[in-house]
Amino acid sequence: MRGVMLYAPRDVRVVDRADPVCVEPTDAIIRLAATCICGSDLWPYRGIDRVDGPVPMGHEYVGFVEDVGAAVTTVRRGQFVVGSFFASDNTCEICRAGYQSSCVNRQPMGELGAQAEYLRVPLADGTLVATPAAPPDDLVPSLLAASDVLGTAWFAADAAQVSPGKTVVIVGDGAVGLLAVLAARHRGAERIIVMSRHEERQKIAWEYGATEIIPERGDDGVARVKALTNGLGAHCAIEAVGTQEAMMQAIRATRPGGHVGYVGVAHGVQLPGDELFFSHVHLHGGPAPVRRYLPELIDLIWSRRIDASRVFDLALPLAEAARGYQAMDERRAVKVLLTP
Amino acid sequence: MRGVMLYAPRDVRVVDRADPVCVEPTDAIIRLAATCICGSDLWPYRGIDRVDGPVPMGHEYVGFVEDVGAAVTTVRRGQFVVGSFFASDNTCEICRAGYQSSCVNRQPMGELGAQAEYLRVPLADGTLVATPAAPPDDLVPSLLAASDVLGTAWFAADAAQVSPGKTVVIVGDGAVGLLAVLAARHRGAERIIVMSRHEERQKIAWEYGATEIIPERGDDGVARVKALTNGLGAHCAIEAVGTQEAMMQAIRATRPGGHVGYVGVAHGVQLPGDELFFSHVHLHGGPAPVRRYLPELIDLIWSRRIDASRVFDLALPLAEAARGYQAMDERRAVKVLLTP
Repeated sequence: MRGVMLYAPRDVRVVDRADPVCVEPTDAIIRLAATCICGSDLWPYRGIDRVDGPVPMGHEYVGFVEDVGAAVTTVRRGQFVVGSFFASDNTCEICRAGYQSSCVNRQPMGELGAQAEYLRVPLADGTLVATPAAPPDDLVPSLLAASDVLGTAWFAADAAQVSPGKTVVIVGDGAVGLLAVLAARHRGAERIIVMSRHEERQKIAWEYGATEIIPERGDDGVARVKALTNGLGAHCAIEAVGTQEAMMQAIRATRPGGHVGYVGVAHGVQLPGDELFFSHVHLHGGPAPVRRYLPELIDLIWSRRIDASRVFDLALPLAEAARGYQAMDERRAVKVLLTP
Repeated sequence: MRGVMLYAPRDVRVVDRADPVCVEPTDAIIRLAATCICGSDLWPYRGIDRVDGPVPMGHEYVGFVEDVGAAVTTVRRGQFVVGSFFASDNTCEICRAGYQSSCVNRQPMGELGAQAEYLRVPLADGTLVATPAAPPDDLVPSLLAASDVLGTAWFAADAAQVSPGKTVVIVGDGAVGLLAVLAARHRGAERIIVMSRHEERQKIAWEYGATEIIPERGDDGVARVKALTNGLGAHCAIEAVGTQEAMMQAIRATRPGGHVGYVGVAHGVQLPGDELFFSHVHLHGGPAPVRRYLPELIDLIWSRRIDASRVFDLALPLAEAARGYQAMDERRAVKVLLTP
């Protein structure tokens, strides 16, 4: 099969890889209907995360079950399935508490490489959720988004305790930040303040339900949020970047007793304990337990109550993955969908 | 009147100070029945917090209302009252959300100096809660504890989401840590693991409901907690020290999805963002909004369902405050009660 490999920073190639087969009886093999490039793929692409030799890329996937191991009971050949970027057993104590991305048996899908024609999914029963039927083409992008960015946005809004009547500030206007606008609106937030200075992304934010957009960053951005919230700060903040500046912006824009949900993969972040102490915020986040939200998200997408497809502003054949990475790196695209 | 002043590190004196009077119409003056020395008073006493010239000390207090300003309506002369270490209006949006220690009009009581015969309490209506009557002598220590350490322990257990069936680990065996054992038991925790290596404090921890006590610290302490919890870590951790080691111990001893309540005043703490991200814990804490818990705590003390007095293991006349500071500094006393 063909699959994407990263050879070195900015050296992405689509190459021949061995067709995956079931290794464990709990595995499934899926034929990908669509896959995509994640903002977090840019960390190794840019050389910020170290790259050792050619590594398979991609951890977002939807497709048809091609084969299942002998122990798999909940999905069967021919079904269309959505999975999360961590395979999980969904039965351990941590999974049952809703933290499947910290499952005691978790396996990162990124190591298997979902930017490919076929994918081996470990712990298939715990990881995959089937849709009611083969989806119409126009629902595939939203279902694909559920595999990571949409599920991550849902978790972020949950971690930030977004609820009716509250004011939410969203730091980050990538796919997760934009879908967090959708999540916040879905949860009934009264005001949704988005920090963004990119016109194309602002447009999507408005469409998804932003009520205010502010271009300022850092202290100026915090001051704008305070000015909009009677000097108190927002009830909820969603951090979807992963940098020191974004984290501090989210914490400082939140009122005492408020909630910060952070889902940007932390890079070089150091939180000053004394400031955090006196901020009085709640802090929760991490790698989203997307599996927790898949049944709900599939239902919302299937019944066309939400449409996450707006974040895909570039679609390419898998063979042109390198162009997709370039477009995201240069911020010419929010998120790139790849069709095998 | 007589009052305690800190002149320089380890130089505590009981000196003549001007009798306080109502300055604002919202003030009250109370005649202290008892006051005490806080673990946090040791930060300036030891010179870790900078000390500028003689400053009044003390922020924990119970006593009789001696005078009230013209605008005070909820407490009256002669009542016995308990207050918190931050004066708060209890009416602003932050107070109404339960974060009175971040009240938009808050005033730190420490600057007024509660280790004295009399104390001016700003925002008396929002800050003070009267007991049903003048308390019997044996309830005074518990009511005094409610003013800070007991209320702080209650907040810590709340922030750590302690509830029936859960396993709680408590880092810190000072007055707050020990009262957190009481708080955890009161909230129905199934297992209460206390990290302590001091025999006298362990004794109090057992009395308050500890189910396990482990002397190890750092990585060894974390490994012990994991071994006791099926490799997963505790559901809840309470941090009651304020150092880097204690914070990391609390975070690392908590399972993914668990809750860390931290109330030790952070000193030199820097939280690594990536470790926090992948830990999947909830983090909440800060200066306890003691006012939120005062009505409940007074009721529990008055009806003798809880007894917080065990943490006072040394009682001295106010005149001997310096001896009290010494005893706490040298860990010969958990907490020192001072009688004016």
